[in-house]
Amino acid sequence: MTNNKRQRKKESVVHLAVIGMGTVGTGTVRVLEEHHREIESRLGCRLELKTLCSRSIRKHDLSWLRHPVEITHDWRRVVENPGVDIVVELVGDVKAARAIAQAAIREGKHFVTANKRLVAEHGMELVERARAAGVSLGIEACVAGGTPVIHAIREGLAGEHFDAVYGILNGTTNYILTEMERRGCGYQEALTEAQQKGYAEPDPTFDVEGFDARYKIAILAMVCFGQPVAVESIPVEGITRIETVDFAYAHRLDHTVRLIAGARRRPGDKVEIFVRPMMVSRSSQLAKAPGPVNCIMLVGSKGGSTVLTGRGAGGEPTGVAVLSDVVEIARAIVSGSSTSTPLGYANWHPVKVARAGQGETAAYLRLVVRDRPGILARVAAILARHRINIDSVLQEPAHSKHRLPFVLTLEPTREKHITLAVAEMARLPFMAMPPLLLPFAQLP
Amino acid sequence: MTNNKRQRKKESVVHLAVIGMGTVGTGTVRVLEEHHREIESRLGCRLELKTLCSRSIRKHDLSWLRHPVEITHDWRRVVENPGVDIVVELVGDVKAARAIAQAAIREGKHFVTANKRLVAEHGMELVERARAAGVSLGIEACVAGGTPVIHAIREGLAGEHFDAVYGILNGTTNYILTEMERRGCGYQEALTEAQQKGYAEPDPTFDVEGFDARYKIAILAMVCFGQPVAVESIPVEGITRIETVDFAYAHRLDHTVRLIAGARRRPGDKVEIFVRPMMVSRSSQLAKAPGPVNCIMLVGSKGGSTVLTGRGAGGEPTGVAVLSDVVEIARAIVSGSSTSTPLGYANWHPVKVARAGQGETAAYLRLVVRDRPGILARVAAILARHRINIDSVLQEPAHSKHRLPFVLTLEPTREKHITLAVAEMARLPFMAMPPLLLPFAQLP
Repeated sequence: MTNNKRQRKKESVVHLAVIGMGTVGTGTVRVLEEHHREIESRLGCRLELKTLCSRSIRKHDLSWLRHPVEITHDWRRVVENPGVDIVVELVGDVKAARAIAQAAIREGKHFVTANKRLVAEHGMELVERARAAGVSLGIEACVAGGTPVIHAIREGLAGEHFDAVYGILNGTTNYILTEMERRGCGYQEALTEAQQKGYAEPDPTFDVEGFDARYKIAILAMVCFGQPVAVESIPVEGITRIETVDFAYAHRLDHTVRLIAGARRRPGDKVEIFVRPMMVSRSSQLAKAPGPVNCIMLVGSKGGSTVLTGRGAGGEPTGVAVLSDVVEIARAIVSGSSTSTPLGYANWHPVKVARAGQGETAAYLRLVVRDRPGILARVAAILARHRINIDSVLQEPAHSKHRLPFVLTLEPTREKHITLAVAEMARLPFMAMPPLLLPFAQLP
Repeated sequence: MTNNKRQRKKESVVHLAVIGMGTVGTGTVRVLEEHHREIESRLGCRLELKTLCSRSIRKHDLSWLRHPVEITHDWRRVVENPGVDIVVELVGDVKAARAIAQAAIREGKHFVTANKRLVAEHGMELVERARAAGVSLGIEACVAGGTPVIHAIREGLAGEHFDAVYGILNGTTNYILTEMERRGCGYQEALTEAQQKGYAEPDPTFDVEGFDARYKIAILAMVCFGQPVAVESIPVEGITRIETVDFAYAHRLDHTVRLIAGARRRPGDKVEIFVRPMMVSRSSQLAKAPGPVNCIMLVGSKGGSTVLTGRGAGGEPTGVAVLSDVVEIARAIVSGSSTSTPLGYANWHPVKVARAGQGETAAYLRLVVRDRPGILARVAAILARHRINIDSVLQEPAHSKHRLPFVLTLEPTREKHITLAVAEMARLPFMAMPPLLLPFAQLP
C-alpha cells in the first residue's frame, strides 16, 4: 500500500498560476525554473507553472522557460481556470490584488501573495474567506522577503507565547542608517547612494517615512498575537531627521540609531505597536545587521529571544519566499489536507491598541541651538517642571556657534510627559531646529 | 457548512503523551500548562496531556498540573493506548528512544522527539517507517532548542536550494570561547565557570570535543540537502587546544575563534561536512552571537544568507520546540491530512561525503616553541617544500622564552598539503607543543 501511495503521488501534478510579472513575479518564475528539481524532490510530485498573467509580457520574453506556459492578460481567466490549484498574486496594486484574492478564493484556489498592504489591511477578510472555502493562504513574502519569519512564528514557534516582536523591517532605511554610521556621511548623501544602488526608490517616501515597515509590523503583530490591528492606528516616524551627529553621540553611549518596528504586549490585553527611530544598544542583535537587510527579534515568554536576519527584498529572495509557500501548500494538496488556520490562529482576538506615550522610557534628546549664555538653564527648567530627571549632558566639539548640537539623556519617564516638555522646548527662541527625541529601545 | 465545520473542530481534542520527565520533559509539560490558551487559540481545538511516562515521577510531584493525567512507568502502555494521538519521546537513551519510536509509529502515533542521536543515526529509518504508517515526525527540538531552524529549512525556505549550512550548534563551547575572548581567561577557567553556571556538564567531553555539534550538523545536512549522512564519517575536532593567545592573534587579523559545524555542496554531487574550530571574521553574524546561544547560517543560492540566532538548550526553550511540533501535527490531525514528507523530502539522495582536505583554504597556524635562532627558517623551509605560501608572520610580546607563541597565516592551499606540513613541523625539536591549525571560514 505504501508503494501504491508513493506511486500515485509521483504521478500527481500541482498546477500553479502567477499573476503579475514585475520584479517579484519574474524572480519567482526564475527561482522555480532553477530549483524545480529540488522542489519536486521535496514534494514527491511535479509542480508545474500553468499560466502567467501579465499586461505587458509576450511569449518571446519567456524563451528561457523549460516548458511552454499559457499567457493571458486577463486575471479572471486565471482564477476561473479549473486546472489551476494555486494562484500567486504579485500585481502590487492593492485594489486589484484584493479583487484577485476574493475571486481566487471563491473559486477554491489556494492563494499566495507578496502584497503586504493587502494582508495588513484585509488580512482578516482573507482569513475568513479562506477558512470558509477550505483553502490555504501564503503570506511569507509579505514580510522580510527571503527571511522565513512568518513560518517561524506560525509553525516553528507555534508552542510559544510571544511577549513582543521587534524588527528592522525595511532594508532601504537600514542601509541609509548603517552607511551614515559607517562613513559618517549625511542623510541625503546616503539616500542618494542607496538610490544609485537600487536600494531606494526615486521617491523614497514610502520607505524613509516608515510606511513600508508599518504594514509589516501590522502583519507580524497579527501572526504573533492572533490579533488583527488597524494599520492607520500605528504611530509612525521616519528617519529623515536623523543626522550624522546622532551617531557620534550614540556611540558615546555605546548605542546606535535604528528604525525599529515593534509590537509588545501591555497590561490589560493590550498591544503597543510603533515604527520609529530608536537608540539601540550596540550589543543588541538588531544593531549588528548592516546594510539592506531585515532583522526580526521574536521575544518568547519561555524560549527567550529568537533573531532572524536575512535579505528583505529583491526579486529572487522574495521569489524564494513565494515558492516556499507554494511548496508547503502543494504538500498539503498531495496529503489531502484542508487548512483550518490560514494564518496560524483558529480564534482571533480583536486587539486593543495601547495608547501611545503611556509607557516609561529613557530617552535621548538632541537639541541644536544658536549658542548664547543660559541655554542649559532654560532647558533644564522645562524638564524640571515636567518632573523629568536628566541622566547626562553630552556635547561634542562643535563647528558652528549658530548651529550647536548637544544632547541630554533622560531617565525613564512617561513618554507623554517628555513629549510635552519637548514641545515646550521647540518654542524656545534659540532653537536652531526642532528637537529630536529618540527613546532607548528596551530590548531583551 | 463552514459553521458546522468550525463547530466540529472546536469540540475535537488531540491527545498527547510524554515519555521521559527529565529536564526537557518537565520543561515541555510546564510550557504546555502555561501556554495552553495560546496553543488552543492557534489550533481551534483542545490539546490535552493524557499520559506521562517516567520511571521516577510520582503523582504528588505533578500537583501543579491543571488536569489529572495518567502516570505509568511502562512506555509500552503509552504507545499502545488507542486514546493517544501524538507520542513525545524525551528519554535520552538512544536505544530506548529507538524502540519507542518504532513501536509508536507502528501503532499509528505521530512521533515527536528531542533525541538528536536518534535522528542523526536512524533518521532514514524513522522517515521510512513514518511514511509507511502515514504519520508525522517532529524533530525541531533536536537542533538548537528554541530556534526554529528545522521549520525554516523544511517549510519557510522550502523554495530554496541550499548551497551550505554553517552553525554554532553547541552553546557550551560558544560560551567558553566567547568568555575566553571577552575576559582573556584560559580554557580551563572558562570551562569551570560554565560548569558552575550549568552550561557545561561535569564531564564536558560530549560538548567540548564537538560530538554534540556533529549529531546536529548531520541532521541539518539531512534536512537541507535531502541527503542522510553517516555521523561517524564526519570529521570532528573540539576546542580544548584553543588558548587565550589565539584570540589576541585573531583580533589582529580582525577575526575570532568559533567552533563551526558546517555542511556545503562540493562538485560532483558531494557534500563536505565537518565540526572544527575556525577563524571567523568578526563582521560575520556567526562571530556576533555571544554566550550559550546557537546561531545557524543557511546559505541559499537565490535568497542569500538567512541567519537564525537563539537559545540552544534548556528545558523550556527545548519544550517550546517540542510543543511547536506538537501544534503543527495537531493542526494536521484537525485538517485530516497525512504527512507524506516527514522530514521535508519525498525523495532522498544517498550522500557522497567529500573527502576531507581536498578543498583550498587559507589558514592560521599557531606554533609554540622554545626560542632559539633559526626557527622561522626551519618552519619556512617545510612550508616551501610543500609549496605553501606564507601570507604573514605575527608575534605578540611573549612571557617566556621556553614557551614562545607565534603565528603564520597561510595563503589558500589544499588543506591536505597543509596537514602534511604541520605533521612535519610537529616533529621539530624546538616545538613546545603541537602546532594548532585553524582554517579561515569562508562564509558569505
